[in-house]
Amino acid sequence: MITRPTRPERPERFDGDLKVVSLGGGHGLAASLSALRRLTTELTGVVTVADNGGSSGRLRQELGGLPPGDLRMALAALCGDDEWGRTWASILQHRFSSGGPLDGHAVGNLLIAAIWDQFGDEVAGLDLVGDLLGAQGRVLPMAAVPLDIEADVHLRSAPDRLTVVRGQVEVASTDGQVISVRLDPSDPPACPEAVRAVEDADWVVVGPGSWFTSVMPTLLVPGLRDVLISTPAKRALVLNLAEQTGETEGLSPTDHLEVLAAHAPELRLDAVIADTSLVDARGTLESTAQSLGARLYVSDLSQGPASDQHDPARLAAAFGHVMRQA
Amino acid sequence: MITRPTRPERPERFDGDLKVVSLGGGHGLAASLSALRRLTTELTGVVTVADNGGSSGRLRQELGGLPPGDLRMALAALCGDDEWGRTWASILQHRFSSGGPLDGHAVGNLLIAAIWDQFGDEVAGLDLVGDLLGAQGRVLPMAAVPLDIEADVHLRSAPDRLTVVRGQVEVASTDGQVISVRLDPSDPPACPEAVRAVEDADWVVVGPGSWFTSVMPTLLVPGLRDVLISTPAKRALVLNLAEQTGETEGLSPTDHLEVLAAHAPELRLDAVIADTSLVDARGTLESTAQSLGARLYVSDLSQGPASDQHDPARLAAAFGHVMRQA
Repeated sequence: MITRPTRPERPERFDGDLKVVSLGGGHGLAASLSALRRLTTELTGVVTVADNGGSSGRLRQELGGLPPGDLRMALAALCGDDEWGRTWASILQHRFSSGGPLDGHAVGNLLIAAIWDQFGDEVAGLDLVGDLLGAQGRVLPMAAVPLDIEADVHLRSAPDRLTVVRGQVEVASTDGQVISVRLDPSDPPACPEAVRAVEDADWVVVGPGSWFTSVMPTLLVPGLRDVLISTPAKRALVLNLAEQTGETEGLSPTDHLEVLAAHAPELRLDAVIADTSLVDARGTLESTAQSLGARLYVSDLSQGPASDQHDPARLAAAFGHVMRQA
Repeated sequence: MITRPTRPERPERFDGDLKVVSLGGGHGLAASLSALRRLTTELTGVVTVADNGGSSGRLRQELGGLPPGDLRMALAALCGDDEWGRTWASILQHRFSSGGPLDGHAVGNLLIAAIWDQFGDEVAGLDLVGDLLGAQGRVLPMAAVPLDIEADVHLRSAPDRLTVVRGQVEVASTDGQVISVRLDPSDPPACPEAVRAVEDADWVVVGPGSWFTSVMPTLLVPGLRDVLISTPAKRALVLNLAEQTGETEGLSPTDHLEVLAAHAPELRLDAVIADTSLVDARGTLESTAQSLGARLYVSDLSQGPASDQHDPARLAAAFGHVMRQA
């Protein structure tokens, strides 16, 4: 079934709207953007571009540009809740299932890659796709070049020494404990428009998302890290609802904060947003948040008791509360 | 270089606009639609779906749907002359050049194929893409199923007998004289929306385009041919500027009309539109046009002395003249 939706009018921008930048990748960033677009029209998603798997990995190899997958997912999250937005978000996300050369490719990835292939300007290309879809905000890559992730890992098979694991997919699915990640190249140029957005923001949001492979990388691009530290914007961190098999197995919510502090020691936070289930009786999470400068905000954020996904409406309510209070 | 165009307002529809349906495929139909969209907002392109080559042929094989290429080209031709329309038309038409699995695919083909793959409704899918781009008219397939073309050909290598050549690509590039074409399946269901558009039209335009592989097939779908014969609409035929190597080598303009009469004997025409260069001193073309019921309209239609492509502005002027007069 397919209906023929009408393209909605572009939403008015209100001068009073908060300027918000949300950083990360994958489903975590999509959840954050879906929530934030309910609160403001001045929204920018800044996306990790280190994916080396699936459709993105194949496009990166075949065409040589940035991996488009997380950018596509962020654009889909910025599509409106009306019929037009829902239809086009689901088309962007659609993957071919053919057993042939197109198998597994998301059509949004192909569209973005084709525009880059044609015009060579990543930011302008993403703006074009955003305008086409009527996206409620802007999506930018964190860096202007494709990156790879390298991690130091205590592998289960070699627990006594650190092993270097390379590649976003490989790190995300590692059988061991990830200690830290770095980028290759280690000093990539930040996307200038992303730097400017963070500079001009009222709020910057980090997380939720795959901690080592989506969230930490946004703190490792030097130009972006510097402006995250120096911006007059307030900073909120959203914790994940659960540990992730492989990547963050065995890490407590407090450990997540400590990983952040280890990767960006100078970064101060104003708010840490956590689901009720994450709070321990001893107040460890709260005191660790405080040690980073942040107040801890707790509420029910998940889509349901067994879900590890944030509910956009609940997350929006939490953001609204935090941004009024902090 | 890439600019960020603004999506234009949807053009107003005027009650007084002529309803025009243009039938064919490839560059010929694109030229006709580019011209007609300057004259009316009530425009429908009805497209041959028998392509078996290139990107379309591969998609047809991999995904099993209609070949999208000629539909994509028609949609691009309906994109406006403003910055937005030109940008998106050129993106739709962009082909990957990678030496890999995507090589040669036009991104508009992939977008259309993905929407069909997801929703299964060809007409609604094309309407969606048209709405997305702000296309100035509608594009429909002539039939609801993919078709193949079969031709009877006097091959140069076997001139004494008719050889059956199968496939749009094979017929278009045949080394011999094509006598007639037919469809396989021979009795495909016409696209109901296309039938309705012809029924309701003020004018129907046939050609220009590859005579045997794009234009004649639109007369061979029984439901569509019947309504082309019975519609109260007036009918115009646009002749090609030149013979095409392979397909129509050695055929005179008059021969083109005779081929049409042979494939659809009951079809009467009101106007035959021809470039000045096609007119012979003896008036053969004029008398053949008259034998089909048509007045011959002659003007300069080509993009230049050596071009075999119609100039959209000149063709628009000719259509405007014919539609006011006939």
